[in-house]
Order: sequence, then C-alpha cells, then structure tokens
Amino acid sequence: MLPVKIAGLGHYLPRVCVTSAQLEEKLGLPSGWIERRTGIRERRYASGDETALTMAAAAARMATAAAGLEIGELDLIVGASSSPHQMIPCTAALVQRELGMPDGHSACFDVNATCLSFLFALQTTVHLVAAGVYRNALIISSEVTANSLNPLEPESAVLMGDAAAAAVICRTPEDGDSAIWHQKFATFSSGVDFAQVVGCGTSHHPNDPRTVPHMNTFHMDGPAIFKLAGRKLKPFLHSFLETIDWRPETIDAVIPHQASRHGIEFLTSRLGFNSGQVIINLPNRGNCIAASVPLALAEAVCQGQVERGDRLLLLATGAGLTLGAIALTF
Amino acid sequence: MLPVKIAGLGHYLPRVCVTSAQLEEKLGLPSGWIERRTGIRERRYASGDETALTMAAAAARMATAAAGLEIGELDLIVGASSSPHQMIPCTAALVQRELGMPDGHSACFDVNATCLSFLFALQTTVHLVAAGVYRNALIISSEVTANSLNPLEPESAVLMGDAAAAAVICRTPEDGDSAIWHQKFATFSSGVDFAQVVGCGTSHHPNDPRTVPHMNTFHMDGPAIFKLAGRKLKPFLHSFLETIDWRPETIDAVIPHQASRHGIEFLTSRLGFNSGQVIINLPNRGNCIAASVPLALAEAVCQGQVERGDRLLLLATGAGLTLGAIALTF
Repeated sequence: MLPVKIAGLGHYLPRVCVTSAQLEEKLGLPSGWIERRTGIRERRYASGDETALTMAAAAARMATAAAGLEIGELDLIVGASSSPHQMIPCTAALVQRELGMPDGHSACFDVNATCLSFLFALQTTVHLVAAGVYRNALIISSEVTANSLNPLEPESAVLMGDAAAAAVICRTPEDGDSAIWHQKFATFSSGVDFAQVVGCGTSHHPNDPRTVPHMNTFHMDGPAIFKLAGRKLKPFLHSFLETIDWRPETIDAVIPHQASRHGIEFLTSRLGFNSGQVIINLPNRGNCIAASVPLALAEAVCQGQVERGDRLLLLATGAGLTLGAIALTF
Repeated sequence: MLPVKIAGLGHYLPRVCVTSAQLEEKLGLPSGWIERRTGIRERRYASGDETALTMAAAAARMATAAAGLEIGELDLIVGASSSPHQMIPCTAALVQRELGMPDGHSACFDVNATCLSFLFALQTTVHLVAAGVYRNALIISSEVTANSLNPLEPESAVLMGDAAAAAVICRTPEDGDSAIWHQKFATFSSGVDFAQVVGCGTSHHPNDPRTVPHMNTFHMDGPAIFKLAGRKLKPFLHSFLETIDWRPETIDAVIPHQASRHGIEFLTSRLGFNSGQVIINLPNRGNCIAASVPLALAEAVCQGQVERGDRLLLLATGAGLTLGAIALTF
C-alpha cells in the first residue's frame, strides 16, 4: 500500500462536437452505422487554436486548483499521451513553458504506452512520490487525432475523440484514507501488430521517400484485439484482485479504458461487475486514447459519481498488447 | 539509498564506421573542420538490416547475460530512446517480440526525455525495483539517426552517432554494496526551443501538407544550450553532491552525456573533476543521444575503467533544457 493520492483532477474538451451522423456523411457510411457498431453518438475534435499543449495546460490548471496547489508548487510533470506534440523535446517540457512555470523548479519527462500511458505514468509517479523524490506531481494526457486517423479504415477512424485530462499526485496527509493498493501490467507481444502506427519513428521516417501517408495513421485489427484481450483479461483481473483480496462487488467504481462498446460490455458480461459500477463516457466522448481513463475519472468526480474514500479500479488495454490495472482508494 | 544495482550492461555498435573526413567530403565541409570543432573523429551509422529493434535486442541479450539472467526472467522492459521505432505501439513492446520473450511475462512502456531518456528510465526503474514491483528490469536505448539529421545544419548533423545500449536492474543481494544514492532532474523550459525536432508529432504531423522535411530533422542552437547549461550546471551539481555529502574528488568515475567536446571539457575546467575521472567516448562514438551515457558506461566496464564497488556519477543535459544526475555505487 502506498500512502499516495490523486489530489486533483482536471480535463479539457475541445469546443467542436462532431456527431456520428456528421461523420457518416463525411466518410460515406450508412446512416446509423457508427452508433450501431460502436455505441458512440458524438466526440470532440480539436480545432483552431486548440493544440495538445493548450489542452494539456487547461486540464493541468484545473487539476492543480482542485488539489489546492499553485502551478509553481509542482515539481514533476509527466507527459502521458499516445503521441508527442513534437518529437523533441518531450511534451512535458513544452507544457512547463505553456503553463508559465518557473524555470528549473520541476523535472519533465514523457511516458508512452499508447492507451496505457496514463496508467504507467501513474504507477511511476506514485512510487516516486511515495519515496519522497517529488512532492507534487502532474500527469497530463492530451490527445489530438487529426491526421492520425485513416478514413479508409472507418472501423477505427470513427472510434477516436480528442480530449485532455490531468491528475495531480501527492502524498496522502496523515489523516487521509487515500491509497494506492496495487498496480499490474502485462504485455502480450503476440498482439504487437493488432494496433499500430508504423510511421512517425525511425522505422518509416517521414523523410524516407518510401513512407506513404497511410503509414502515419492508425491501423487496428479490432476482432483480433478483442479475442486476445478477452482470453487474457479474466485471469489477469482474477490474479490482480486476489493479490489485494478485493472482490468485484466491493469495488465502488470501475473506470475502464473506453476502447469500444464490446470492450466495456465485457466488464459486465464476463468479469463480474454490475452496470452500476462501471463508469462509461464512450457514447459522447469516444475513445480518447491515453486521456480516456483520466477523463472518465475526472468527469465522474465532477458529476458526483465518484467520491473521496471510494474504492476504484482503473482497468485498460493498450497497443502492445498490454493489459493494466490500478486499484486505489480515491 | 536504494539497494538496487545495475546488474548487467550491454551495447551494440553498428557495423559501418563513418570518419569525419568522409562526412566532410559528403557535406562539403573543409578538411579537419569536424574534429577541430567537435573532437569527433568517427561515428557509427546503422545500415542494411540494422534497425533500432535489432540493435536494442543485441544490447539487451548482452546485458541480460552479463546479469546472469535468462531473457525469460525479465519482467519489465523500458524503452528509453529519443525517438520510437514506430509511433504505436511503444518500442519496449516491439523489443519484447524481437527478443522472443514469453507472452505476458513482462510489462512494456517507453520513457522519453531525449538525451536524458536513459537517466529518467533509470530513476523510474530503480524505484519500482526497490519497491518490489518488478524483479529484473531491462532498460534499452537504441538510436538510429538516419533521416533525422539536417545536412544544411552541419554543426548538429556531424555530432550524432548510432548505437544501442542496455542495462538490467535488480535488487542488490544481501552481501552486495551496489546502491543508488541520489537522483535529481531539473527542466529549464526557457531553453525549450534550443534543441528541437518540431515534426513527427501532432503539431506538425507528417500527413499535414504544411509539414516540410526540415521540420522532421534535428535543429540545435549549440551556443544557447552551452550558455544556459553552463550557468545552471554548477549550482545544480553543487546542491546534488551536497545532499549526499560527496565531494568531486571522491567519485571514481563521471559518465557524462557525450554532448560535445565543450560540454565534456566543462567538467574538468569548471566543475572540479580531473581528466582521469571522466569517461569519454565522444571521439569515436559521437553523441549517441539517449544511448550515450549507458554506452559510455558499458564500454568503460568492458575496458576495466569502471569496476564493481566504484562510486559513479551519471551526468547529462537534454532537450528541454533538462539537467539530470544519478549517483550510485556500481
């Protein structure tokens, strides 16, 4: 058990809301196709002056205020998005400047594990804070998907939404109940090809003349992911909960990665949760990649669905294929 | 103090060696220009079937064997390079497959802070291993710079070299002396523009028609970095050493990021080290970005310059601008 808490949460939603009907018209899909297949009615897209940095900064300001801190009191910034704002330097350093934070008072690095970036960043951060290395850490996930989605692969392109979310992590005060109980991750690289952007790195560099545009967009084999994750998730979760002696029915809220309707339904149909336990924002947010879990949590707190003292399970799958879970008292 | 050790190190050097004379001819530079300005005589470039993955896997196998472990005993892989092999999934997951590791027995994520990626990954990993979350962790830094260097900016293009390096991190056995004494990082984002690749992310996406090739290459304002780092490094290091009550003369070896000749000379001219303490591989390796520090350490161990029980200081600067230091007993 680590005496560490999510002291504050924040989020930012882009102004432009795109309905599934609008997307169907744009992509030449039959009316109703998107909601029937995915359960998604609408999602936000960044536009105009909204960038991954401005969105991250807005979410960070909200999270810092919710934690009762000033921006200048943060001493660690961890960027945790599926793509950087630019390749060099790390997004966290760019956010330090965007927030107008004092020079040299915080350390900045990024963590990347696609949809699991936030959960890995949380694991990393809670141990560093528990050890006293940092006092007030900020994790930011900010996703802008324009140019990264392939309109010729609508089954993945229609899933994604843009958003930013942030969390401030501090040591739990002496009289507090907040705690991190367990974290576990497992990567099954037999599924490494199931979700990919093969470009934007050294393998298919943008300046290599052999790199073509579809390499820079997301490709997903949804059925293969669902089959592999479906087979692995039950024993993974069983062993996870057994370690801390939690039973599914004693968990106040499950905050899943909003990967797809099938993925979320799996929680109630196969993993033993009831629908009242599961936080769902997929219909009006889509899959916001790394921002998905912290956004769902931040909105659930705003709406009173999650309260201090609640026992929470954060549960996600990500490209790799990786499974991850974190159990905490909020 | 964390009872954690670098249990094994490994490295891989690409087959092709490019001399500074060859580069001068290719880039139309005066004879002797590169070595006079940078101190670099030659560097390696990945070619043929050498990729960031094959290089990482070779370094990882060497590090794992040096730690006396089998590949299947690793339970964490942290990718720590300046660029990913591809955008999704993380490089660590691709390395799990490249190494033929068992499915689901390790967790995979990447850490990115450009030249400081390895040091941040080491900080993260030693805390996770000290807390017992993972037993045998692998960190890999693998750099392939083809397509990322701008021949029209020879002052940065000639500096870089390709290489991979790996470290296996384990708990120190009961009878061992190895320990991590201190880690510290500070980001000065007033220098965020001094070292950049503005492309390959969401800001100037490769599929955005406004993105032009030079945006996907490295740009550096060397004098500005040297000025800012030069001003900040001395008080940073002073406070760092004071915390653990180490004096410069009691350190057996300083392993600096091999950023440039000026950067390394600063250690002896201004920071109080003597030239016998400083491990230098810049002349024949160049600046290998995130692989620079672990490569210099791995080669120093192979050559008997660093031995078990030695007190080491890893010291680096990176884009951000970030300063970082880790003190350990090897």
